[in-house]
Parts: sequence; structure tokens; C-alpha cells
Amino acid sequence: MSKIRVAVIGCGAIAQRRHIIEYQTNEHVELVAFVDPVLERAEQCAAPFGAKAYADYTVMLKEIKPDAVSVCTPNATHAIISIAAAEAGAHVLVEKPMASTDKEAAQMIEAAKKNGVMLMVGHNQRFMPPHVKAKEILKSGVLGKVLSFRTSFGHPGPEGWSVDGKESWFFRKEEAIMGAMGDLGVHKSDLIRWLLDDEVADVAGFIGTVSKQDTDVDDSANCILRMKSGAIGSLVASWTYYKGEDNSTVLWCENGVMKIGTDPEDQVIVELRNGNVERYKVGAIATNTVQVTSGVIDEFVHCIVTNTPPSISGEEGRKSLNVILAAFESQATGKMISLN
Amino acid sequence: MSKIRVAVIGCGAIAQRRHIIEYQTNEHVELVAFVDPVLERAEQCAAPFGAKAYADYTVMLKEIKPDAVSVCTPNATHAIISIAAAEAGAHVLVEKPMASTDKEAAQMIEAAKKNGVMLMVGHNQRFMPPHVKAKEILKSGVLGKVLSFRTSFGHPGPEGWSVDGKESWFFRKEEAIMGAMGDLGVHKSDLIRWLLDDEVADVAGFIGTVSKQDTDVDDSANCILRMKSGAIGSLVASWTYYKGEDNSTVLWCENGVMKIGTDPEDQVIVELRNGNVERYKVGAIATNTVQVTSGVIDEFVHCIVTNTPPSISGEEGRKSLNVILAAFESQATGKMISLN
Amino acid sequence: MSKIRVAVIGCGAIAQRRHIIEYQTNEHVELVAFVDPVLERAEQCAAPFGAKAYADYTVMLKEIKPDAVSVCTPNATHAIISIAAAEAGAHVLVEKPMASTDKEAAQMIEAAKKNGVMLMVGHNQRFMPPHVKAKEILKSGVLGKVLSFRTSFGHPGPEGWSVDGKESWFFRKEEAIMGAMGDLGVHKSDLIRWLLDDEVADVAGFIGTVSKQDTDVDDSANCILRMKSGAIGSLVASWTYYKGEDNSTVLWCENGVMKIGTDPEDQVIVELRNGNVERYKVGAIATNTVQVTSGVIDEFVHCIVTNTPPSISGEEGRKSLNVILAAFESQATGKMISLN
Amino acid sequence: MSKIRVAVIGCGAIAQRRHIIEYQTNEHVELVAFVDPVLERAEQCAAPFGAKAYADYTVMLKEIKPDAVSVCTPNATHAIISIAAAEAGAHVLVEKPMASTDKEAAQMIEAAKKNGVMLMVGHNQRFMPPHVKAKEILKSGVLGKVLSFRTSFGHPGPEGWSVDGKESWFFRKEEAIMGAMGDLGVHKSDLIRWLLDDEVADVAGFIGTVSKQDTDVDDSANCILRMKSGAIGSLVASWTYYKGEDNSTVLWCENGVMKIGTDPEDQVIVELRNGNVERYKVGAIATNTVQVTSGVIDEFVHCIVTNTPPSISGEEGRKSLNVILAAFESQATGKMISLN
Amino acid sequence: MSKIRVAVIGCGAIAQRRHIIEYQTNEHVELVAFVDPVLERAEQCAAPFGAKAYADYTVMLKEIKPDAVSVCTPNATHAIISIAAAEAGAHVLVEKPMASTDKEAAQMIEAAKKNGVMLMVGHNQRFMPPHVKAKEILKSGVLGKVLSFRTSFGHPGPEGWSVDGKESWFFRKEEAIMGAMGDLGVHKSDLIRWLLDDEVADVAGFIGTVSKQDTDVDDSANCILRMKSGAIGSLVASWTYYKGEDNSTVLWCENGVMKIGTDPEDQVIVELRNGNVERYKVGAIATNTVQVTSGVIDEFVHCIVTNTPPSISGEEGRKSLNVILAAFESQATGKMISLN
Amino acid sequence: MSKIRVAVIGCGAIAQRRHIIEYQTNEHVELVAFVDPVLERAEQCAAPFGAKAYADYTVMLKEIKPDAVSVCTPNATHAIISIAAAEAGAHVLVEKPMASTDKEAAQMIEAAKKNGVMLMVGHNQRFMPPHVKAKEILKSGVLGKVLSFRTSFGHPGPEGWSVDGKESWFFRKEEAIMGAMGDLGVHKSDLIRWLLDDEVADVAGFIGTVSKQDTDVDDSANCILRMKSGAIGSLVASWTYYKGEDNSTVLWCENGVMKIGTDPEDQVIVELRNGNVERYKVGAIATNTVQVTSGVIDEFVHCIVTNTPPSISGEEGRKSLNVILAAFESQATGKMISLN
Repeated sequence: MSKIRVAVIGCGAIAQRRHIIEYQTNEHVELVAFVDPVLERAEQCAAPFGAKAYADYTVMLKEIKPDAVSVCTPNATHAIISIAAAEAGAHVLVEKPMASTDKEAAQMIEAAKKNGVMLMVGHNQRFMPPHVKAKEILKSGVLGKVLSFRTSFGHPGPEGWSVDGKESWFFRKEEAIMGAMGDLGVHKSDLIRWLLDDEVADVAGFIGTVSKQDTDVDDSANCILRMKSGAIGSLVASWTYYKGEDNSTVLWCENGVMKIGTDPEDQVIVELRNGNVERYKVGAIATNTVQVTSGVIDEFVHCIVTNTPPSISGEEGRKSLNVILAAFESQATGKMISLN
Repeated sequence: MSKIRVAVIGCGAIAQRRHIIEYQTNEHVELVAFVDPVLERAEQCAAPFGAKAYADYTVMLKEIKPDAVSVCTPNATHAIISIAAAEAGAHVLVEKPMASTDKEAAQMIEAAKKNGVMLMVGHNQRFMPPHVKAKEILKSGVLGKVLSFRTSFGHPGPEGWSVDGKESWFFRKEEAIMGAMGDLGVHKSDLIRWLLDDEVADVAGFIGTVSKQDTDVDDSANCILRMKSGAIGSLVASWTYYKGEDNSTVLWCENGVMKIGTDPEDQVIVELRNGNVERYKVGAIATNTVQVTSGVIDEFVHCIVTNTPPSISGEEGRKSLNVILAAFESQATGKMISLN
Repeated sequence: MSKIRVAVIGCGAIAQRRHIIEYQTNEHVELVAFVDPVLERAEQCAAPFGAKAYADYTVMLKEIKPDAVSVCTPNATHAIISIAAAEAGAHVLVEKPMASTDKEAAQMIEAAKKNGVMLMVGHNQRFMPPHVKAKEILKSGVLGKVLSFRTSFGHPGPEGWSVDGKESWFFRKEEAIMGAMGDLGVHKSDLIRWLLDDEVADVAGFIGTVSKQDTDVDDSANCILRMKSGAIGSLVASWTYYKGEDNSTVLWCENGVMKIGTDPEDQVIVELRNGNVERYKVGAIATNTVQVTSGVIDEFVHCIVTNTPPSISGEEGRKSLNVILAAFESQATGKMISLN
Repeated sequence: MSKIRVAVIGCGAIAQRRHIIEYQTNEHVELVAFVDPVLERAEQCAAPFGAKAYADYTVMLKEIKPDAVSVCTPNATHAIISIAAAEAGAHVLVEKPMASTDKEAAQMIEAAKKNGVMLMVGHNQRFMPPHVKAKEILKSGVLGKVLSFRTSFGHPGPEGWSVDGKESWFFRKEEAIMGAMGDLGVHKSDLIRWLLDDEVADVAGFIGTVSKQDTDVDDSANCILRMKSGAIGSLVASWTYYKGEDNSTVLWCENGVMKIGTDPEDQVIVELRNGNVERYKVGAIATNTVQVTSGVIDEFVHCIVTNTPPSISGEEGRKSLNVILAAFESQATGKMISLN
Repeated sequence: MSKIRVAVIGCGAIAQRRHIIEYQTNEHVELVAFVDPVLERAEQCAAPFGAKAYADYTVMLKEIKPDAVSVCTPNATHAIISIAAAEAGAHVLVEKPMASTDKEAAQMIEAAKKNGVMLMVGHNQRFMPPHVKAKEILKSGVLGKVLSFRTSFGHPGPEGWSVDGKESWFFRKEEAIMGAMGDLGVHKSDLIRWLLDDEVADVAGFIGTVSKQDTDVDDSANCILRMKSGAIGSLVASWTYYKGEDNSTVLWCENGVMKIGTDPEDQVIVELRNGNVERYKVGAIATNTVQVTSGVIDEFVHCIVTNTPPSISGEEGRKSLNVILAAFESQATGKMISLN
Repeated sequence: MSKIRVAVIGCGAIAQRRHIIEYQTNEHVELVAFVDPVLERAEQCAAPFGAKAYADYTVMLKEIKPDAVSVCTPNATHAIISIAAAEAGAHVLVEKPMASTDKEAAQMIEAAKKNGVMLMVGHNQRFMPPHVKAKEILKSGVLGKVLSFRTSFGHPGPEGWSVDGKESWFFRKEEAIMGAMGDLGVHKSDLIRWLLDDEVADVAGFIGTVSKQDTDVDDSANCILRMKSGAIGSLVASWTYYKGEDNSTVLWCENGVMKIGTDPEDQVIVELRNGNVERYKVGAIATNTVQVTSGVIDEFVHCIVTNTPPSISGEEGRKSLNVILAAFESQATGKMISLN
């Protein structure tokens, strides 16, 4: 089989640290083009692959006609670029949050459908071994029904992650649209929907800029969720955990509690009412491999190769996005927001 | 100085396990009367002290004219009894939540004021050594401003605590008015106000009965708080933590994080951005002594003896109560509620 | 339903510490008779239950006509008493090893069948939570095929367990027939058959009396087993582990290793080739409850009540016994012994 | 004194990782020749030393007339090459197992004797600090007589060790003669003889190929040993411990137990019946030095320099070999095999 | 053999908690008399044994003519009572410090010699398992020569130990003569002499009353010692270690360090320059048995029964005493004191 | 502001590993000259800075006229060089011990005063985070008065530290004047004075050469100190801690104990009489930064820049020196020495 010709649009941190590396090690892929408004950045990425570099993605799409693209641009342009790529006949892997509004998300889904290409959203938390193990345990039924939960994602902010540091687009509202909620919160809304195999019914949230200077995007959010199943819980996203970083989820269930990411040794811990305790060390992979391999790119390529619809579809990404958007609406209106 | 003649009204678990024991070991106190609608229960409590037992507190107040009373009845009667006691000239220590409505709380404060007696609310969390240490550290300034927080209190429910087990008044709404929120949530609203030396500005909450059968009081609540200082956080109260019990508070601050009650060895842990870590084991006292001595009764007696207004005054109790009531209002109206 | 009338035959340690206690807490059972050649011992056991005491089980069977019996006598008499009980119409729970020879075992099975009563053997290792968990994991397939194993059971000998200490029948060959192999080895042959869902094909063993004085029963045995599946492993039984007691089983499999009983904290540990580690603490129950409740008596009673054939049937006990007998034959003949 | 002129015959993994490195750091040695049927391999080894490379050891022996040789070839040629070297007047250090048959071993001993050269076998386990410490403790008498034991050596197989990976001679029976038993089992038969200062009286073993594909050498062996002293124990060699690698020995003695290699921190642990526990961390050396320096080469050179007969003589190697050969005979004949 | 008739003179804490209990469990002993100026105390001790009680030891010695006595009185009377007992023909076990002056010690030794009785001093540190193990290791030579050391004994003072609490004779100088130095320091001077098999050459000390009120005995002492071998070290005795109690000894030697009593788990730890570490848990006995059995009484009785001179003889006790006396002289004169 | 022109006199280990590195990273400093009698060493240090190299400091002072100098020469020349530098108008940072005699120290102070330059002594222990934290805790009063203490500093000797190894000037008495006491002891006399905010009243010491060969400087010292406040304690300096290295200080106080440097995890531990324990991990900085940055150079530069007298002044250095000199005098005279 001939290789899948892939173009990467947006050459910042997530492209450099995840997409490019993972495409590179996938035997089915040929990296053919890189796009970034800062052309030099695109060129640097392209050089090792003998690929072409572009400042304008429309030109690239026309000239290269890639089989597939990764959209790694600032949030504001996820939709427009994804739609253009779909229109150009390319399968689309778009970073999270997939879009800035529900309408955009709907249009992206529609464009992919119309053009017969796949649309997948980069919600990599679903592939992390602790989350895979947690879901497996929940499905086994040993814990019974989930009654309440807490899921949070906090770190000191994108200053240390973005290739542009404090000058990152993450802090410019017109490009980022959202701050910590778009960066981290949507990871957790997607995770909790997937883990519980449940949908969010109602959301309320306090979202603000409590610490960062010279930006008007949110750096801290505390939300509460009511699931369709009746379970209630909290979702926290923060760029102001200057110490005490946290990517954890705790689920209190009928028969005990499951703790994910609360212990440095054992990533999943199940404590049952009958006194039994189960501890799972599933981070060895996470540290050695998934650090490099998020699982997202391989899944995307696998879907293309096998012509299988991706499990993290546009519809899935849209639902996870809508939880976050509802939280913003709650903050803006002072009301709890119901999702359909 | 002659001893303070104290009557205990309501002879259930909290009276038996805290109030009576702590009055008994306080040299300034003479226990003179016990009241419980189940007269036998009052008699059993009274016997060791040669005190009198009553089924009706109004009769007791008239006959005994106590110097002070502890009000340990179900929540619904806190106000009416406290007011009657104040009218009878007795200082009042009332269990939390001090009342069922803000109006009741206001009347209690007014009654105490009018009759020149003290009114104190049993918010014992303020006296727990880890909380005392935490406040001391916050005041030192080493952590800087609090940016966000999480405070939670969860256990498997009052079935195992109440002297009546599953038949406890805790599960009867007309007497309890509130469930986990009245039992546990109000502890945490009081704690967070006191720890941060700050007031709650806005509240939203999802409160429900997600697990308990045959009751219509709440067993699970997830709330979000915005403080006047701008800090935002979450407050959780639950009777459905069947495993993974939790009475913890985590504060993310400008200079690091403080974790209270998250580690079985060290009750307060401070991790600073500069890499320093401070660990405080202050539970030895908590386990040996405070388990028995909450600190509340000694403080109440001390205030009477020295004629000092209690730090956990009716006003304080009222503010902490109003946070909880606002959460209920939020649940009922689907709106975020602002407090004045 | 009327209660099952049970007689206990043999009133030594195993009767006192397991059978009587467990029958006593089973609501379906009435203990009606106790038999021991030392009549006083039978009387002491009988007294709390207002039961009758006998020195001769034949008299008891005739007079009492029990619904069921536990046979807790020295090994040599397991068969004759079990057969007599079956002939008297009683269901039989016999301690392990069920008999001294294969012929006896066959006669016991035949007697039970002929008289329409149940015959169950007291192989309690199958009910221990770590073993239940281990079997569940093996069945899940995560470890793949078992390739080799080691199972051992060693302690300092029955001197400290038997009610007669150093004078115990355990050391008298005419009554015990076997030493450590009958006491401990047959537990492990039964366990390995059940855990692996496999049968022993070939056995060799070195069995001797390497430390105990004044006895000619075996105190130490090292055997090797080849299973029908091709897996090979070792089985050790010892009364001379004066320190370093051990009741452990390790299974090396295609995908990793499972360690049972090797760690004081986590009774089952699974280490997979992919780096994942799973640790199960399932001993809380083992320590609090199973210490008292082996599970054997409840299962026996349950089978009678529901008229279900016991899973640890005479046939099962016979196969486990034959592994041990083959090891003795190997020791005696210098040959490896094949089992059918 | 002039340097000892050494030739290495066979340039695979054991030569590269142990012999050459250790000769190189020994001040008394000059590496003068390297032999390997793959001449390039010999040349690569020879280059750094300005030594000569040969494909044929007979030519080398004639041309170079080395003072000493290391025989690091596949098992099948240990004897013929060692004898040729001895005839050529060279001292011989031969890897374990020293030969394929007892007859070969006898001839090697005879050849060395006749030609007045030393014959030493590379049983490096005797030099490992934990084993040295264990022997010292056994000799002190604190543990009393050894009653039973377990010694095992298992890893995932030579695929990851041999320079030829899955194509290694280890898997070709005509060259390897034995699989895991020759690779690992003979280490443990030598160790147990040396540690206990005792000889094996009887052996039985189940030896098979339970997991490896495309080979007919053994990958798994479970043996039982009876020592002349009466102690009985088990010896396991395996190439199918895909996880749970193990090079441990446990000795149950009259006064307690000694555990060697069972704990990652403390390589030797003694637990006494009187409650005392002694823990020895003697692995620091093992990791830093012995990883590189097995001790074998230094001992061999020391023997030559001081004209001292090597402690691990041909006779010793022969006895350790015969234990393994007896196990194979047991497997083949279905009988226990007595050693003289 | 008839039993040794023993009298205990002085019925305070050390008599009650060690001497009486240990005599009682020694099969060779009959407790025949108890002496205490507080006659009731003597009577209470005597009652369980049907022994006689005296207020005056001279009367007791005349009337009872005991075979042996324990002298458990305040330090000031050790000499006079021991001499009287020896004159009365009784073997003498005297508590430490054996006397208040060197002259007294000499007279005691002389009296014992003249009357043909044994004189033993209660230096129980020599029998503690960690010290026994430490001496064994030092003697093995593995550590080489001791170069320097630190030995200390500190606790919060005898208030919590003495049967008279704060009113104890320990605080009255005319009876105690010395404070912490007599109570604890002499233990360490004896220990270091015995452990190192060496004698103290020079001593200097700062000794004072730094914390205790209403007493003029020393509560804190820091001394430095130069041994005849050249090793130098420090000796600390303190009654003001209100937290951080300590009975430890650290020896820095040519080949490494030995730490005794510095770790709660392992009482003796040897760390060698070559990286090896040896850890000895020898406290199990210390906790279970020696807590009750110091070893001193059994040794004393054993010496009498076997007519063997005690290893902790009067001469030994005298030398250990003289180290302490020299420290006091140093404090008084501002000079270093040489011992012969 | 123009940069401070600094010359480093003496280019051995302390200059290379601390002074030069720390000057280099201080933005206010320009390194202009390096002096060492081994001119090549000075040249190597000077090269990276384009600085000048000298063998003679008098020449350098005249030619360069530095603003400030670091005196990193052997102890014997600290005074003469410091005085010359001061006379040349340079601020002086001199390594500890600042001088060899009190007279020298006085002259250095006088010279600095006369020439209006600063004189600072390199007592870096005061800047180590654990010591800073310890002093902060002592000042808070929580521990009450210090009653007794132990402070020690021991390692295997300067062989492994000095750039000249065993040939180091540290072992030549005419240059070093003192051995372990000058290298380590003066650190601890300075630390204890500073930590306790107290002065030493009396000193006694045993100082000797117990292990090093071919040198007559001291390698081991045990001293006792009496502070003006009455606290007594010990001070140990050793070059013969071949294992068990130690830089620890323990303070026993009225309300508990503070342990500094006794635990590898937590550098400061406070254990209070009320059972509370506080653990401080303040070594992260110590390891990452202070390893490189002692704090001394930055402080020296800061004092010059801000024209602030240094806290570790010549007077401070002189007092700390005099404690050590008194210990030597004690050793020499056999008397305790009082300091004024």
C-alpha cells in the first residue's frame, strides 16, 4: 500500500512534541508538507523530511493535496482550516478543543461528511493507560454505579510549554478564545463523558482570570456537573497550580472508590467497601512510550488505513466542547446550563 | 467562683460523645439537667451526675434556670429552643447548623443580645490542630494570596454514627431540614471562611439524593464558591463516600500549595514553588485528646467564665449557614446566588 | 425449614478452631452430637450446645441419626468413619486428606453415591480470597498459558497447632499415615489442580524425615509435577520451616508472572511483560473473617440446603490425594509416577 | 615477571562481556590471540590489542603457543578445544558447563594433569559477594544444619544476551547440547554443592521445551535434589521467566532461614528463630564492579601467577556437571538417578 | 541443690521493675527478705513471697543471714550496705554506680574478697542484645581499629520513672550524690570500656544543672574521653532530653562506621568503606524479654550457682565509676583528669 | 554602575569550585586577576575571563589595584595577604579560618578599618537553607531555651577534595597550621554561635592525629563547649569519618528537640513535647543551587554594592576562630579555657 501523505498545519509545541514525532514513527505515513504563518518554523520542521513548507494553508492544500492533515493551530482557526482541508479531500485530525463554538463544530462535522473524509479530535486522555484501565474496571461492574466524582487538571500555565513562552497565542483571546478551559478543561469533560459512558445534563461554573497578568483568557475554572445518570461532580481546570500539579480523577461509587492519578506509584487504585484494595501500576508505558506516543496519531492513521470511523469523532468532540461552552455560558449568565 | 450550671437539651450522639464528656472534664461546670423527648435517654444521661431529666425543655428551663445550655437537638428545633433558652437567661451553645433559615438565625442573635446572654455555634473544625496550624501558616504570608481551593467532607453517612442508626432523625426531612449539607457542608463553609479570612460572594450547587433510600434529604452536594477576594473553589459534602472518606482542604496559592488532611502521616503539608516542602504532624493531639475534646465546650465555658464574646458567634454561624442555604437556593432555582 | 442436625466426629484442633465455630454461626445448623475417644473432650465441646457426647461414633450414628457429619479424626480413620456415616444416611464433610489410599477414597465415593448423600472434602485453600482472585485473573486470560510454577506450604510443624502438642497423633504414623504431605502437601496438590484447571500427569518426590525426632512420618517433601498441559513445576510441603513460613504460589506464564502469598501487604501481584503491575490486597477478609470462617462449612451446608453437589467432591479430593500418594510411591520406588 | 600470554577461543557474548574486559584490566596479562570461526569477529576483538586473529584454534595453538586460553565456544566443543589447548601446554579456563558428558570431563582433567597445566571452570556464582557472604554465615554455624533449600535461576532466555540473538547457537542442540540447564542449571548445581559443602546424592527432574519455538533444547527444568547430608531441595532453571526474573536461593536451617537474592535492597537476609534478623547489602560491589569483574578471570590469572591449583577445578566442574546430566537422565528414564 | 536465699535491700523502682521480677522467675532463687526504710513498701514487696519485711538492713542481715543480697538503695548507701552484707557472708549485687567515691569502691572490693563473697555491679547495658552484637562485630575485626566515638544517654529525667516521682531521692544530693551522671553516665563509661576493650586515659567534662528546678544534682553532662588506644570521643548524659530520647553509640573505625541504637528498626548498623551495609535487628528479644529480664540477675545467680567470678566485678564497676568521678573532678578543677 | 573589579588570590579547590564560579554569575563583578604561586594554575583560571595571572600577590595588588579580593590561600597566609590587600584599598573576603592567631585576626580587622574597606569571612554554613530555617524556628520561640547541643562535621579528609590530593597543603602544618579543626571545626563554632545567638564561655578539647599518616596536623577533635547562656554541648571535627559522613547539629530545648542534617529527606526536623512534629525539606535549593552558590560571594558583593557592613564581619570570624584556638590551648595545657 502506498503511504498516507500527511500535512501538518501549525508548527508550534503540540505539532513538534507529538504530531510530527508520532507520524514519523508510523510506517504508513509520509510527511509531505508543513504550514505555519512563521515560515521559518515550517521550514525547520520540513527540512528533516524533505517536505515542503508553507505560510498559507490554502496554498498548501491546493498544491499538495494531502491525504490527511493535522490541524495544530490556535483554537480560533481550528474550524476554518479543518473545513478547508475536508473540502480539499483530506482526512482531518484536529487538536482540542475542536472549535470555538457549537456552530463551527457542526459545520466541521458536516464538511467531513459531505466530502467523505474522516474527522477526529485529539482527545489523547482516552488513550492514557491509567484511563484505559479505569474504564475497564468501571465496565467490569465491581464498583457498581458511579455516585459522584471529582476530575481536575491543573499546572502552572502554558508559559513553560509553548514554544513562544509568555508570548504564546495561548494568552491572546482572539486566537485562543479560551484559556485553561480550552487547554485543560475540555480534556476533562471528554474524559468524564467517556469514562462514565454518560452525558452531562447540567453545568455551572465560576471561571476567571485570578492570577495571570496581561491576558484576558481564563486561568482558573471550577465547574460542577450533573450527569444524565444522576451522578454529580466537579471539574476543575487551572493554569495557576504553581505547585501541586494535578491530573487526577476520583470516582465514588456504590461499592467503593477509584482513584486515578492520585499516587505517584500506582496510577489507578480501587478501594472496595469489603476492605479489598487493588493497585495498578500502568504508568511504565505512560512514561516510556506514551510520553512520546499519545496514541492519537496511531489511531488516526489506523482509521484511515482500515477505513474505520474514528472513535473520537467530530460528534464526540462536539459534545465535550459543549460542556465547556456551557460552563462559560453559566459564568456569563449566572445560571446553570442544561445540555441536550 | 461557683460552678456554671449547665443543661444539655437533646441527648443523642453529639451530646453523648462530645458535649457531656467535655462538660464533665471541665472544672467550672456542673451538669444539672438533661432533656430528651425520649425521657429514658435523658434519665440515662442524668444518672451519673445526679442531675434531673426532662422530656420537655420548657419545663426544664423554668424549673432549673440553668446558667447555660447546649442545644443538641435535630436541626429543625435549634432556633426555637435556643431562643427559649436565651429568654430564660441561659447562655446558649447550639450545634451546627445553627438554624434552618436565615430568619431563625437572625432571631437567635437578637434573642441573645436582648437577654444579654452569649450565643455560640459548635463549629469545631476551627479548633482542630491541623486547621489551627494551617491558618497560622496562611497568616505568615509564606504562601501569598490564595488563588483557588477545594474543601470536602465525605463519609458513608450517619447510619453508623447516630444512636438511632438508620432510624435517625438525620434522614427525616421535617426534623433534619438538610442532610449532608447540614451535617458536613456547613462545617466546610465555616472552615473556608475562617481559614481564608474571607467571605463567600457567590455560590452554585448541585445537591441531590443519589444513593440513600427512603429519605428525601440530600446525601451528596457539589458546590462552587467565589470568594470576595476573587479566589474560586469547590465545596463538597457527601454521605455516599462509602470508601475513600475525606475531610480535606487544598489551597493553591501564589507561592505554592497547602494540603490539609490529605496524608495519613502529616496533616498539613506545604509545598513551595522554590522546591521547599514543610510537613506538619499535628494529629497526635487530634487523635489522643481532641477526639474527646473538640475544644468547643472548653471555649464556650471559657467565654462565660471570662465574660468574653465567643469567636464563633451567632453572626459567624449565620454567615456559614447562609452559604449552605444559598447552595440550596441555587439548586432550586438553577441560578448562581450572590451573598451580601 | 427445619435445621440440619450435624454431628462432629473427632474433637481436636480442626474441629474446635474451624468446624464447630463455623457450624455455630450458620443459621441452618443445629449441632447435636460430638464424638471423641477422649470422652471428656467430646463433652466439653457438646456442653455449650446442649448436645450429646460420645466416645464411639457407631453408637452416635445409631442413636442420633444425624443429617450430616464432619469427620475430623486422624487420617487413618477418615474412610471407615465416612463410610459408616454415609451408610447411616448422613451427608459427609471429611477433612483432608480424605483417605489414606486410593481404594479407600473410591469406597467413600461409592458409599456416598449408594446412600444418596453428599461427600465433600475440606480443601479450604480454594476459598481463600487470594486464591479466588488468582483464579479469576488466570481465567481472564491476561497472563496467557501457565508455563511453570512453584507452590509451597511450610511451617514449624503441628506441635504448636494440635491440642496435644508434641504428643499429637500427627506424629504417630499408624494414625497419621502421612506427615507434612498429608497436612500441607495435599492442600497444594488440590490448589494447583484447581488454579490451573489442569490435572497432574507425572510426579516425582523426595520425601523424608529430616528434622523431627521420635517420629517416622515425613516432615519435608520436595516434589516435581508435570501437568497434562505441559506446564512443569514444584510442590513443597514442610514442617521444618522454623522461620520463613510460607504458603505461596508463583506462576510464570506467557505474558508475565503471578505471585500469590509472597508479599505481606498485597496477597496477589501480577507483573506483566509490558511493564504493568497489578497489586491486590485481598487479605483483609482473610484475616478478619476467613481466619474464623474457612468457607468450607458454609459451602457444605449450602450444598445440603440447596441440594447441590459440592464442588469439592469426593472425586476432586481423590485426585488431589492421588498426587500425594504418587509422590510417596516415587520416593519408595525411585521412579517417576504417571497419573491417569 | 613477563606477562601471561592469553588467547581467547570463541568471541561471542561471554568472551566480549567478561573474559576480554577482565583480562584487559589484569596487569599480569597480555592478550595475544583471538579465535572465532567467523574470522571478522575474531579480528574485531583482536584489533584493539594488536593481537592476531584466527578462524582455526589448532592453527592458533601451533603458531601462538599461548600460556593460557579461555574457551568460550558453544558447549559441544568445550572438551575438544580444552584438551587441544592442554596438549599445547596452555592453562585452560573453560566456560560452564565444562563439557557435554562425564567422559569428556574426565578426559579434560586427564589432559590437564598429563600436560601439567591448570584447568579451571568458569563458575562465577562462587565469587558473587552475596554468595561469599552467605557461605561465610553458613560456616559461622549460627544457622545450624541446612534442612531444605530452593535454588533457582530464570530469565527470558538468551535471545537478549547472545550476540546472535534468536539465531544464537544456544538454540541449536548439536552445538548447545543443553539449553537452560547448561546455561543456568549448572550454575545452581555448582552453587548448592559449594554453599552447603555437600554433594548431591540423588536427582530427579522434569525437563522440557515448554515455550520456545523452533528449537529442541530445554527451556524449563524443575529438579529435586537429595544431598549426602540428607537435606532435600529443588533446583530450577528456566528461560521462560518472561517476567519475575530470579537468581535466588533460600536455605531453611535448624535455627532459621537464609534468603539470598530475594530482596532488591539486601542481598542476604538471615531470620533466626529467636526473632533476630540480619540484613546484608553486599550488592554495591556486585553492581559496580562484579558486573564487569566476575572474579573468575582474576582468580585464574592469580592461580597461574602463584602456581596455585584453582579452587574451581576440573573435578569441581565435573561434579556440578554430573548433577545436570543426572537430571537429564532422570527425565529420559523416568527414574531418580543416584550420583556417586 | 537448695535454693539461694536472697534479700532485696531498697524497694524502689529498680527493685520492683527489675530485681524482684527477675529473681522471681529464676528457679534457683528464694526471695526471703525485703528491706526499705518505708516499712510498708518492704511489706508490700514481701507479701507475695511470704517473705519478711524490714526497715533496717542490719537487723535483716543478722536475723535472715541471706545467701545473697541486691543493693537497690540510693547511691550514697551502696557502699556501707554492700560492705555490711559482705561481712554478713552474703554475695552482693549492687546497683550502679557501685559507690560514691573510689575509696568506697576499694573498700567494697576488699570486703568481698575478705569474706569470700562475690561482688557484682548492675551494669545491664553489657547484656543488651544490640551491645552484645556490636561487641561481636568489633571483635571480628571487620571494622578495624576504633578511631573516634560518640556515646550518649538522655531522657526527660527520673520524674517519670521513680516510684516517688518528683519527690524522688534522685534529686536529693545527699542521697544521690550524682544526678544524670550517676544514673546514665556511668552506664556509658562502662559500655565504652567494655565495647572497645580499652581503658579511659583522660577525661574532661562540663557538668551542670541546666533545667531542673529545686535540685542541685547534675541534669546534663558533656564529657570528652581519650582512650589508652588513642581513640577520642564524647560521652553525654542528660535528664533534659525532653524529646529526642537517645541511648546510642556510634563508632567511627578504620574500615567504616558502626551505629548502635540510632535506628528504630535495626539496632546495629554497619556501613563499610567498600559500600557494603549490614543491618541487625536484635531488638525483638530486647523488647519482649530483656525489658523484663535485664540479664543481670540471671548472671549474678549463675555466678553463685557455678561459683564463677562475675564478669562485671567490683574492679570493673570501680573503673567505670572512676571515669565519672574524673569528669566531676574536671568540672570542679577546670582541668583534664588522667586516669591510671 | 561600573563593575567591581575582583582579584582571586590562591587558585586551589575552594577558588575553583566556589569563588570563581560565583563571581562569574554575579552581574556586578568583573574578574580581573588571579594569583597563585603555581603560575600555570593562575593562568588557567584567568584565561576564560581575559584576566591577568600573577605568581606574586604584591605585584598584582600594585599593578591591578582591584576593588576587592578573595583570599583563598592556605591558612598561614590569610592574615598577611588580607592586610596587604586592605592596605592596597581592596575589600577583602577571606576564607575560614580567617587567621592562625587572635593577634593576626585583630590586625586584619584593624587594617580593614584603617583603610576603610570591608572584611568578610567565608563562613558559608550561615547561608545554607537548613541553617537559615533552623535559626528562624529558634527565633520563633516555639522550642524555648536551648539546653544542650551536639554539632559535628566529619568526612574522610581533604584528599578527595583538594586539587593536589594527598599532596595538599592541608596536610603541611606550616601552611595549614590546623587540620580538621581549621577545615571543619571553625565552621561549627561559627554556626553554633550564630544559631544560638550566644557566645562560648568555656572550651575543652581532645585533638589529635589518630589516623592520617605522614602529617602532624590534627585529623580528629572532640570538644565540649559551655555557652554564656549556660547551655552545654559538644563540637566534633573529623577527617576520619571514612564512612558515616556527618554535618549535623542537634539542639535539645525546653520544649523539644531540633535535628538539623540528620535525615536525608528532611533537613530540619522539630519534635515537640506535645507530640507535634514538623519536617522541613529545604535541601532542594541546597542541592541544585547552593552546591554552586554558597551565598557567600553574593553577600560580599551585595555589601560592597550597597555599602553595607557584612554580617559575617572580621569580628565574627575572630570570635569563631578563638573557640578553635581555645580548644587547641586546652589540648596543649590540659585545662579548660575560658573565653572573654
